[in-house]
Amino acid sequence: MKPIIAVIGGSNCTADETALAEEAGRLLAERGAVLVCGGLSGVMEAAAKGAKANGGVTVGILPGADAAAANPYIDVPLATGLGEMRNFLIVRTAHALIAIGGGVGTLSEIALARRIGKPVVGLHDSFRNAVDIPRVQKAVEAVQWALERAREGVV
Amino acid sequence: MKPIIAVIGGSNCTADETALAEEAGRLLAERGAVLVCGGLSGVMEAAAKGAKANGGVTVGILPGADAAAANPYIDVPLATGLGEMRNFLIVRTAHALIAIGGGVGTLSEIALARRIGKPVVGLHDSFRNAVDIPRVQKAVEAVQWALERAREGVV
Amino acid sequence: MKPIIAVIGGSNCTADETALAEEAGRLLAERGAVLVCGGLSGVMEAAAKGAKANGGVTVGILPGADAAAANPYIDVPLATGLGEMRNFLIVRTAHALIAIGGGVGTLSEIALARRIGKPVVGLHDSFRNAVDIPRVQKAVEAVQWALERAREGVV
Amino acid sequence: MKPIIAVIGGSNCTADETALAEEAGRLLAERGAVLVCGGLSGVMEAAAKGAKANGGVTVGILPGADAAAANPYIDVPLATGLGEMRNFLIVRTAHALIAIGGGVGTLSEIALARRIGKPVVGLHDSFRNAVDIPRVQKAVEAVQWALERAREGVV
Repeated sequence: MKPIIAVIGGSNCTADETALAEEAGRLLAERGAVLVCGGLSGVMEAAAKGAKANGGVTVGILPGADAAAANPYIDVPLATGLGEMRNFLIVRTAHALIAIGGGVGTLSEIALARRIGKPVVGLHDSFRNAVDIPRVQKAVEAVQWALERAREGVV
Repeated sequence: MKPIIAVIGGSNCTADETALAEEAGRLLAERGAVLVCGGLSGVMEAAAKGAKANGGVTVGILPGADAAAANPYIDVPLATGLGEMRNFLIVRTAHALIAIGGGVGTLSEIALARRIGKPVVGLHDSFRNAVDIPRVQKAVEAVQWALERAREGVV
Repeated sequence: MKPIIAVIGGSNCTADETALAEEAGRLLAERGAVLVCGGLSGVMEAAAKGAKANGGVTVGILPGADAAAANPYIDVPLATGLGEMRNFLIVRTAHALIAIGGGVGTLSEIALARRIGKPVVGLHDSFRNAVDIPRVQKAVEAVQWALERAREGVV
Repeated sequence: MKPIIAVIGGSNCTADETALAEEAGRLLAERGAVLVCGGLSGVMEAAAKGAKANGGVTVGILPGADAAAANPYIDVPLATGLGEMRNFLIVRTAHALIAIGGGVGTLSEIALARRIGKPVVGLHDSFRNAVDIPRVQKAVEAVQWALERAREGVV
């Protein structure tokens, strides 16, 4: 079974965050993971773009009811119609998560991940003073960390 | 954007239903659709097996929290932890649905599909006296019907 | 603990269905049950009106995000923002259900109730040919049946 | 329509947090609000106990499928079977929220509240370094703040 790794972060993001997300996506695809994200712009789009550049499978768990809202790099746009409750599904369905930048939506995902015991690593996330999670500096470290946790079978 | 078509039906099914589901899966993959199903056994497994035989992408929206419960033909096992509420997500995320055989779980999906205006076609489904939906005799007809509805942009 | 009984049915209903729902609501309140419903018009409003006439507590599990959409007889309007997925919550949170009239939304609730083992009784429901559930003719019989099932601790 | 106010916080809490939650519950009931909480122990139980002492209506939105898990001060135990996804429903259904103490589950609720624009006030909450929300020292101030926001019709 392929590991399912979520990349979470804001729909608006800096150039640095975009680069990190794209590289994380590329590496995840290279190593055979399925990318799950929120399906929209910013970090979500960059990660999906990176994954597609390496032939990966990308899943977008969208808040709205229209799959056409997904960014162009999403293979499987799941239009849940759940609004921000879809954040929970991203956390639930991933084996591990990588957080990049992010606002309060991302914070809700990190907190839920911690609450239900999903491994989550910060890659220049915005919450250094808010939550105590492992943190790394490079995309390759985040991907390696997430894949190791996923392999340990943490569900 | 690839159409997302759900094949719904029981986790136990007859040999005839298995054959119909597998053929529907094969044809959906051949025509470029993403297959969504409940990810478990019976009709869900047969449809996914057929889709994989033709190189399709298969998504299983699982009731439990463990992705390992998915049948072996699921590329993207989404372990929602929602129990039978996951039925709603199958209906919501598909552009159109094909119902084969089925028990009360499948009936709940057909009824929800009708409620929210998702196209659903019966392919030897169990509910001829229960709900008024279009019905066809062959897998190829069901697939064609579903893809046409999906193409019409019904969301 | 007070039993939680759902009355389900259409947002449009006949005068007969209105009378049945109102009487069911009255009797449920008289016997100490909490009434759960979808919070909108038709059968939902009539049942809540009946319950309030006898001092009962009424809960409306609404599809939208605005509690103000509830009918005037709802004490606790829960605006879920889940759309029709809220049907599942009505089924999940009730100890037993009474179905009156109804369209495909109600059918989805009955089917889900059967799927997860919640007791549901038909009181002139619209689905005699669709699903096999116990059926009664009078509101008092439906209320008695639902309260007995709830007392048996079916969760 | 009565305002619906959520009191959120940990299932384990200090004596000080218990006292704050109980007083908040008492004041909310006195001023006619419906109390929503997670239905379990700690801050949830103390708030419900306070509300019942003043004749208020208390709603517990439970993670599990068994209403009997609710604390004894809950009038309406809604057993969602959604696990921690029920946190979202607490946020969604409240007009305003009061956070007392709390761990990562509470943090997920505060972050979601901020994300979807629900007013949330900290009453000695655990997240002074994590999220920027209004903060007060006394239960009476928190209740007043929440009721004012609810009255402003923030949905």
